[in-house]
Amino acid sequence: MLKIYNSLTRKLEVFTAINAPYVGLYVCGPTVSGESHLGHARPYITFDILNRYLTFLGFKVRYVRNITDAGHFEEEGREAEDKIASKALLERLEPMELVQKYTNLFHWAMKEFNCLEPSIEPTATGHIIEQIEMIKKIIADGYAYEKNGSVYFDVEKYNVDFSVKGFPYGILSGRNLDDQLDSTRELDNQEEKKNKADFALWKSAPPEHIMRWPCPWGEGFPGWHIECSAMSNKYLGKTFDIHGGGMDLQFPHHECEIAQSTVCNGHMPVKYWMHNNMITINGRKMGKSYNNVIKLTEMFSGNHSLLDQAYSPMTIRFFILQTHYRSTLDFGNEALQAADKGLKRLMSAFATLQSFNTNQWSETANDLELKTQVNKLLQNFEEAINEDLNTAKVLSYMFELVPIINSLKGGQISQHAIDRMTIQLMQTQFQIYIEEIFGLKTENNASNDKLSGVMDVLLEIRNQAKSNKDFSTSDLIRDKMDALGIVIKDAKESSSWDLK
Amino acid sequence: MLKIYNSLTRKLEVFTAINAPYVGLYVCGPTVSGESHLGHARPYITFDILNRYLTFLGFKVRYVRNITDAGHFEEEGREAEDKIASKALLERLEPMELVQKYTNLFHWAMKEFNCLEPSIEPTATGHIIEQIEMIKKIIADGYAYEKNGSVYFDVEKYNVDFSVKGFPYGILSGRNLDDQLDSTRELDNQEEKKNKADFALWKSAPPEHIMRWPCPWGEGFPGWHIECSAMSNKYLGKTFDIHGGGMDLQFPHHECEIAQSTVCNGHMPVKYWMHNNMITINGRKMGKSYNNVIKLTEMFSGNHSLLDQAYSPMTIRFFILQTHYRSTLDFGNEALQAADKGLKRLMSAFATLQSFNTNQWSETANDLELKTQVNKLLQNFEEAINEDLNTAKVLSYMFELVPIINSLKGGQISQHAIDRMTIQLMQTQFQIYIEEIFGLKTENNASNDKLSGVMDVLLEIRNQAKSNKDFSTSDLIRDKMDALGIVIKDAKESSSWDLK
Repeated sequence: MLKIYNSLTRKLEVFTAINAPYVGLYVCGPTVSGESHLGHARPYITFDILNRYLTFLGFKVRYVRNITDAGHFEEEGREAEDKIASKALLERLEPMELVQKYTNLFHWAMKEFNCLEPSIEPTATGHIIEQIEMIKKIIADGYAYEKNGSVYFDVEKYNVDFSVKGFPYGILSGRNLDDQLDSTRELDNQEEKKNKADFALWKSAPPEHIMRWPCPWGEGFPGWHIECSAMSNKYLGKTFDIHGGGMDLQFPHHECEIAQSTVCNGHMPVKYWMHNNMITINGRKMGKSYNNVIKLTEMFSGNHSLLDQAYSPMTIRFFILQTHYRSTLDFGNEALQAADKGLKRLMSAFATLQSFNTNQWSETANDLELKTQVNKLLQNFEEAINEDLNTAKVLSYMFELVPIINSLKGGQISQHAIDRMTIQLMQTQFQIYIEEIFGLKTENNASNDKLSGVMDVLLEIRNQAKSNKDFSTSDLIRDKMDALGIVIKDAKESSSWDLK
Repeated sequence: MLKIYNSLTRKLEVFTAINAPYVGLYVCGPTVSGESHLGHARPYITFDILNRYLTFLGFKVRYVRNITDAGHFEEEGREAEDKIASKALLERLEPMELVQKYTNLFHWAMKEFNCLEPSIEPTATGHIIEQIEMIKKIIADGYAYEKNGSVYFDVEKYNVDFSVKGFPYGILSGRNLDDQLDSTRELDNQEEKKNKADFALWKSAPPEHIMRWPCPWGEGFPGWHIECSAMSNKYLGKTFDIHGGGMDLQFPHHECEIAQSTVCNGHMPVKYWMHNNMITINGRKMGKSYNNVIKLTEMFSGNHSLLDQAYSPMTIRFFILQTHYRSTLDFGNEALQAADKGLKRLMSAFATLQSFNTNQWSETANDLELKTQVNKLLQNFEEAINEDLNTAKVLSYMFELVPIINSLKGGQISQHAIDRMTIQLMQTQFQIYIEEIFGLKTENNASNDKLSGVMDVLLEIRNQAKSNKDFSTSDLIRDKMDALGIVIKDAKESSSWDLK
């Protein structure tokens, strides 16, 4: 019985699929006008866990995550020069080149995080027609109006008409219209709007704007919010199971999505809304003005003034899983270093556990108390994950088991203390939760690390053999290594490997 | 002076960019209705070399390679059941799920081949509006007509009118219209066409067709040929430098592209047309009826009845480069195994060459003849690549240098035979051609191979130490390896490592 917190009802609810075993899951994807940063890590890792867990439970998940590639796409510093229309086309900035570059980088980062690919990754530019059709319908129904080639959604009219039906504008965020007016950030072209709260469905493109499409209202490009309504509607239907995203998208983005779809379909589009909480950097909100927007490439390389060292994708993934997705999460060097150590400890215990040959274990346990304790902890995994995906709690149970695993290996706890079935269950549960559901894995550079470690051991043996005048051993090592393409460099006082 | 063979003029021509240093390059990309196969390897590796070489020459290349994701996209075996429209949307086959899956696989394979990403990878579904606009223009100009919601290009009218201007239909393939009629494969909806040679610009979608877009002629989807005209026009302009693709695309696809763009722009779209020749499998054309369409995943795993073993992406890349792109290329186990050996020999010599410390070389050469020979071979690289990208010739020159490199290492040729500058030039040229232009690299699994090799050496040393009763050494090895997470498994007669 998976329970998830529904932002719409503000309650923990038992998850039931609209049309089991199928589940439609939509997650707001990145805007690829720049490199992905730390703020992208949390939602995509959180909803990767959801996707993995639903799949593990036997659901057939259609996971749709969009790419926002339409709008104001300009490279910093190039804007001015590139708007000179007299330039040849090839010399001018092509926004789709930026889109390609940042989409590729995003995909690379997601792979590094071991996030499974969504079933469909639709782009805003790939669904201009669908967006135009939806806007036409909203205009026809009287909830949008055209002004100077732009189209705006009439929030006030929507709110009046749909409040009666039980879907006021603000139903998700719990804000009333007056609150919203004060916090709306969409300040451009205010003079074209009937009311300040109205938002753009379509924007007329000024002559120098490269991204533009013809439409019934002249040439332009879609507003921020319509793409997610159009694409979720197309691929998941008029009502679908789960819509996810960061809490910052709750208002206005998701509120607008609800309004757009509700006008078109006559009912609200989503059964469960899920929102992950925000991250902070050393206690501060992430923001350009604080100079603390850390790109993922900077996290992985450590190349940022706020970072003491590089943090691997798995360390970041593990760090994120250590906190419940609805709590805020603060990134800082100390916490990340602790996560790095914790992950190594967990993965090492996991490796140890998997190396146990369970055939050597007896059918009965000598230490019934320990057996009961272990089984209880293992059963708790499921309870915790079913409690609104509490990965943090699952990990805490795992860490209670880590010293037991290590003691079984070290002999401080006898093998006879626990029975075979318990050990086998522990192996299975760790494999399922660590690998399948949490998507944690041994880092790629592990084999390189091991290689250099092993080479160091051989070097030590060889140096020892040489000082013992055991030249047959030292020569053997040299020859064998040479055959592997590894050359020993003997300097005066030390020697080292040269790996090609 | 790069010369390339222009399929349009059937001549070797000196390459000059229309608007240097910019170069517009368009290559027809894959149709992602299925997994990429061997037929995809050659064009994308060939034009990757072109892209790399032009970039090396200092050109700023905008490389556009499309993804064909519109049309009849159905999963084998699922077609019938999925056309039952009564099913819920989530239960029905969604063509974009297939598109996503096969696009991901294609990207993965391209990465394995070390092909650089194109600057823009536009999709057909992402450019429906651009295609509709182009079709509208062709209809307005009188070279296309609508019939039952489909639109056809009027080939005969085009041929009559544009032959006068010097651009007859068939100008690229050299076929006259009568030849073409006999070989055209587009046999559906013949009754709607004015003439048999006419091709579809837009197809009306039958009710059960999931992929469909509204347009001035009702709902439907674009024909095969219009996407490349629309997308090359959008991103590279009305006349661009180079259009590449497989020879099988010359007719009718590229012929249609020329006709479409010429109507819209009044002149032909491309300065240089380049076509790679086809591959055969054991002397036979690749085709479903021969059961010899080998998927790339099958090549990499060896899991196909025609394959004796797995062939790595680099082996395939190297194999393709060993033949000039305009010659046919036959895939067979023997040839691939030879390529595998050849690549290893080349990469090993390359590693040896790079390990030479040139400071130890003298300023003058003792063997002037050898020095002259080496320098001549190195200069030939450029000449060969400039001769219509003759990678095969460059490789043959490299293989003349391989024994010299190996002899310099082994001492059969004295270091004093060649001067420092020659060695440095050799290092530079090998690095540029092997890595930068040919995109060859040491395979990823190399460090794993090395690791297992090194571990075997350590095991041998340990077993030897044990049999010599040198327990301090054997224990040292065990402890050090244990610390690296590598456990020795001692069985009765043998021992092995257990790597976690």
